[in-house]
Amino acid sequence: MSVSFPYSGREEIRPDWAVLIASELDLIEAKLESVVASSVSPAFDLSVHLLSAGGKRIRPALVVLSALASGGCEAGRIVNLAAVAELMHMASLVHDDVVDETTERRGVDTTNEKWGNKISVLGGDYLLSKAFSLLAEEGSSDVLRVLANTAVRMTESEILQASGEGDISVWERNYWRIIRDKTADFMGACCECGAILGGADAAMRNALREYGVQLGLAFQVTDDVLDIIGDPELTGKEVGTDLMHGKFTLPVLLALPNLDESCAEEMREMLGKGVLTHLEVRRAAKLIIDSGAVELARQSASDCADKACEYLAQVPASEYRQALESLAGFVIYREA
Amino acid sequence: MSVSFPYSGREEIRPDWAVLIASELDLIEAKLESVVASSVSPAFDLSVHLLSAGGKRIRPALVVLSALASGGCEAGRIVNLAAVAELMHMASLVHDDVVDETTERRGVDTTNEKWGNKISVLGGDYLLSKAFSLLAEEGSSDVLRVLANTAVRMTESEILQASGEGDISVWERNYWRIIRDKTADFMGACCECGAILGGADAAMRNALREYGVQLGLAFQVTDDVLDIIGDPELTGKEVGTDLMHGKFTLPVLLALPNLDESCAEEMREMLGKGVLTHLEVRRAAKLIIDSGAVELARQSASDCADKACEYLAQVPASEYRQALESLAGFVIYREA
Repeated sequence: MSVSFPYSGREEIRPDWAVLIASELDLIEAKLESVVASSVSPAFDLSVHLLSAGGKRIRPALVVLSALASGGCEAGRIVNLAAVAELMHMASLVHDDVVDETTERRGVDTTNEKWGNKISVLGGDYLLSKAFSLLAEEGSSDVLRVLANTAVRMTESEILQASGEGDISVWERNYWRIIRDKTADFMGACCECGAILGGADAAMRNALREYGVQLGLAFQVTDDVLDIIGDPELTGKEVGTDLMHGKFTLPVLLALPNLDESCAEEMREMLGKGVLTHLEVRRAAKLIIDSGAVELARQSASDCADKACEYLAQVPASEYRQALESLAGFVIYREA
Repeated sequence: MSVSFPYSGREEIRPDWAVLIASELDLIEAKLESVVASSVSPAFDLSVHLLSAGGKRIRPALVVLSALASGGCEAGRIVNLAAVAELMHMASLVHDDVVDETTERRGVDTTNEKWGNKISVLGGDYLLSKAFSLLAEEGSSDVLRVLANTAVRMTESEILQASGEGDISVWERNYWRIIRDKTADFMGACCECGAILGGADAAMRNALREYGVQLGLAFQVTDDVLDIIGDPELTGKEVGTDLMHGKFTLPVLLALPNLDESCAEEMREMLGKGVLTHLEVRRAAKLIIDSGAVELARQSASDCADKACEYLAQVPASEYRQALESLAGFVIYREA
């Protein structure tokens, strides 16, 4: 079944988990568009630019599927909460792009490239404030607590990442903590909040959160792999963007102990410079691929996805649980 | 009575409104210090740096005094909400300083000067997330709604301000909207949320909010006046910082129609350049002062402070209401 993602600007094949909740995803897009409306034109323009660039909408999907797998509730509440999740995600992307001086994402100019850093810093604040404003309509203090605490950990992790740029030892010590806090816990929180809305008991709420955390780890490790071997036409960003910014992710960390002595020394010397040139990035990527680290990282992502699915055993069987299982496969096999 | 503000680094005379709630203000400082604790050192260091720089703590005081003037409630709730208000304020200051490339505030280096823009962007996010995380403990969806909607308007106003830098026509059209949304509505929200905690009825809640809005207008107009005639030793920032960044505030707008033809032309020509040099700032400040616009702006601030006090007539007489009246005088007569 081929349907277009609203705002994506191109026809895409919706994966099966997205087909199941196609009507909810459409309502979420409409909600996002209405929620970012502002009489201050750069705030609105920047938001529409981000929405139009598309994206996989995995976080909103996690909210919807977890809510429905837990028994469901009034559709409007699920749509609102899913929109909150995407707004928080968009806000963090905007500030990440400012911090990393990224010029392209999802194949289009980043907001900092288009509007400059000033408007982008404030634009990220606008989106995060809108998220909490929409969350205020929800009225569940449990949901607010989970999402606000997650936002704190996300920013802490981004700070740890930014202050560890170019320092391999920071990444060796903190890689799993960074990706858990910046990506996985947020996906876990999306599932947990969906479960709260769906009226899940404590055990199911916990199982869905842990599913989301493991899914998030699998997602982020795959992202890190795609940074090394992804097709820029599909990922919408240059190969080695992380390396170039001194972010030494799992494929790098797994390559180091697997390289012969001279290659390992060459690699450590390059990484020691902190920020790599295009030429060094290409050389480092070759060393990483030749070391077999990409397969090791893929295996690691696959293990996390398996663990995610194990947690689903505690959730009653349904087409929604099946879609969550399918999503676990999607995040590790995706090419973008 | 001379007591030191915690973290201020120097002895200060607490004004009478602060003496009345000295114990609450001390609890708020302790709360702020404990709330920003983080295992990620730049997040914590940056927060402590901001807290140590001091500040007038007007927003927390508005929360406390409004709550107590409305009948009061459990002290811990008031302290938490007051800390939320200060965290939101600190977060906005950090991002403002990044956007304006300010290097000094309250007489100490700004966070962007000390840690760079990257950590400061994320540090602002950290403080805002902490604010919402602490707010989640409060559990009042009314309070969340008021503060989240205020945060949205604040960011919209900052975006309007940033996109209007150096464009006198934007300021002529939007001055009152900008200062209402970026400063006054937030102070109104602090009062309103205090009133909610204190169990105020709709009329008193409204009166306290309107008091806060008028107080905020008086506060911001006075800030704009101090930018022209303030003593840098007391304000902790250079004269004409706003002018230098192309922010054309009330003294400028009031000066233009009061200058003789040649001076008005000279002024419009300088402002037309967008961003002013130090020499131009000095010349513009002289023209503004000579035109009598500073007195006109001071009168405007005084009118707003009077209106603020009129709203207090709807609040039962108490030492807290008296302190709110006193605060209205403080904001327009302050020198820093």
